[in-house]
Amino acid sequence: MHNRYFTIHEHPEGMPDRELFQLEAAELPALQEGEVRIRNTWLSVDPYMRGRMDGVTTYIEPFTLGKPLEGAAVGEVIESRDSRFKEGDRVRHMGGWRDIAQLPGDQVEPLPTFDVPPQAYLGVLGMPGTTAWVGLNVIADMQEGDNVLVSAAGGAVGSLAVQLAKAKGGTVVGIAGDPKKLEWLESHGIKAISYRGKDARQLSEALKDACPEGFDVYYENVGGDCLEAALDNLRVCARIAICGMISRYNAEGPAAGPANLAMLLIRRARMQGFIVFDHWEHHGDFLNEFAPRVASGEIDYQETVMDGLESTPDAFLALFTGRNQGKMLVKL
Amino acid sequence: MHNRYFTIHEHPEGMPDRELFQLEAAELPALQEGEVRIRNTWLSVDPYMRGRMDGVTTYIEPFTLGKPLEGAAVGEVIESRDSRFKEGDRVRHMGGWRDIAQLPGDQVEPLPTFDVPPQAYLGVLGMPGTTAWVGLNVIADMQEGDNVLVSAAGGAVGSLAVQLAKAKGGTVVGIAGDPKKLEWLESHGIKAISYRGKDARQLSEALKDACPEGFDVYYENVGGDCLEAALDNLRVCARIAICGMISRYNAEGPAAGPANLAMLLIRRARMQGFIVFDHWEHHGDFLNEFAPRVASGEIDYQETVMDGLESTPDAFLALFTGRNQGKMLVKL
Repeated sequence: MHNRYFTIHEHPEGMPDRELFQLEAAELPALQEGEVRIRNTWLSVDPYMRGRMDGVTTYIEPFTLGKPLEGAAVGEVIESRDSRFKEGDRVRHMGGWRDIAQLPGDQVEPLPTFDVPPQAYLGVLGMPGTTAWVGLNVIADMQEGDNVLVSAAGGAVGSLAVQLAKAKGGTVVGIAGDPKKLEWLESHGIKAISYRGKDARQLSEALKDACPEGFDVYYENVGGDCLEAALDNLRVCARIAICGMISRYNAEGPAAGPANLAMLLIRRARMQGFIVFDHWEHHGDFLNEFAPRVASGEIDYQETVMDGLESTPDAFLALFTGRNQGKMLVKL
Repeated sequence: MHNRYFTIHEHPEGMPDRELFQLEAAELPALQEGEVRIRNTWLSVDPYMRGRMDGVTTYIEPFTLGKPLEGAAVGEVIESRDSRFKEGDRVRHMGGWRDIAQLPGDQVEPLPTFDVPPQAYLGVLGMPGTTAWVGLNVIADMQEGDNVLVSAAGGAVGSLAVQLAKAKGGTVVGIAGDPKKLEWLESHGIKAISYRGKDARQLSEALKDACPEGFDVYYENVGGDCLEAALDNLRVCARIAICGMISRYNAEGPAAGPANLAMLLIRRARMQGFIVFDHWEHHGDFLNEFAPRVASGEIDYQETVMDGLESTPDAFLALFTGRNQGKMLVKL
């Protein structure tokens, strides 16, 4: 059987060009014992993939040049030599960036049966949702009534973090750039602050106006000026969960860090980087708590959908200019 | 009764001049019911005092202009109207920077009775010792066999942190500047790295040579290049305890932070600022564990002693050029 997939043949520096990504085609080998063949229906693109293009191991192995790129995907089993799967099963796996995936059954999981569309398991009920939940509840140890700040608050993770925080929080403030994202935040009772046209000091002042008593929790997706402004506005014993620093992912050289890092000492605050895969044991708790709220419509999750395998690189690149509202997906 | 004390009459910018400090004299009021009068024998000077000179509340109230400065001291009771104290009792309190202190008995504590000289309760068994112990054991959650890095490793806190770490650690590396401090570290089996003549990148390479597998714990007293170099050399799930950032205390303006703060994310590391007063409930555990080791001579604590009340400002200022080896004290 024929399949098509994206590769890269060099490690990009800075923001990748569209030309970095090559669509290739190959004949799949015969299905081996224990393997499953899947027709992908939805592909995920996520900021963390940029790190895997650099050719150095950070917290995850780099992509191999010339081999199919990887990422989360959902699809339907079209052939199985693993007794746990049969034709027609809906599954989630990491064989994305391609139309047909062929994988060992151990790397494939059946979709849960909550009343949600299948692509929800790539976003609100997948890695981004779990990341929002773990960051707030496990890493930042959010307590009832805490004031919470979220950067990239209109993104796949941030838009869920603000809703989780709002449900048990005090004041919740979200930083975003796009006017539609700001409007969406306000419509959910989140105080929305635009970073556009503001330096760190101006952003810091806007945060102080929005929440004069300061933040107990900062959910960090951006870095740079957002971090510096947040450090100015911490309460004593604040916790910062560093989920990402997207402002730096395409940087071509080192940039100075925040000038006010000593605020961690002054406020006796804690800052911790995490990746959700270290905390995947919470995924079940997360699903049981969160999926019914998603199925009932209580949680407003957004998707930005591009069509067709060919659009996958465009969908990925659009993440870095903030053109996605909520989870960016490719529909095949 | 006459007493003499130091004051400041303005908030310094940058490194204070010797002239900032004024020695004043006054007649003490009659001792009130519940008060104790103490002839100080030893005064402590500590880097954190610089923060109290700025006139803004950070984690501790600022000094009041024109009033006696404060700090830890030990002395002997010479008059008491508190039934818990009698003439000749040896006590510790915060009425330092002066020769005679007059305080409510609630602010005075009797010295414990371990077989150590009284000034030990200002250093190895006082705030610096407790700070070293809390930072390693509580904040950085040091485990047996951890590789530990300590900056300002020849200072009052750092010189105890390296010995605590060495007793249960794997590789222990100390950063210092003064050749005598480096030699002292080596004599205790600590790998000593000089920061002098090195930028952050060179310091990072020296740390990598000293401990190629990286550090589980970084005990931070300095900030600046030390922090940047340490961030490059963290193991996965490393913990950084920020006790101080002395490189910044006399800065006249903001300086950029480390360019590699994203290492917290890549290494899923935690960084936490603390002050020992938040964790004083551990002081008893610390004393019971540590005092016998000090009394037996197992712990090598060093003191730099200046003589006479008049030398107190010089002793304080010398902290910022690293001229103290171990705890800086003034003997009256």
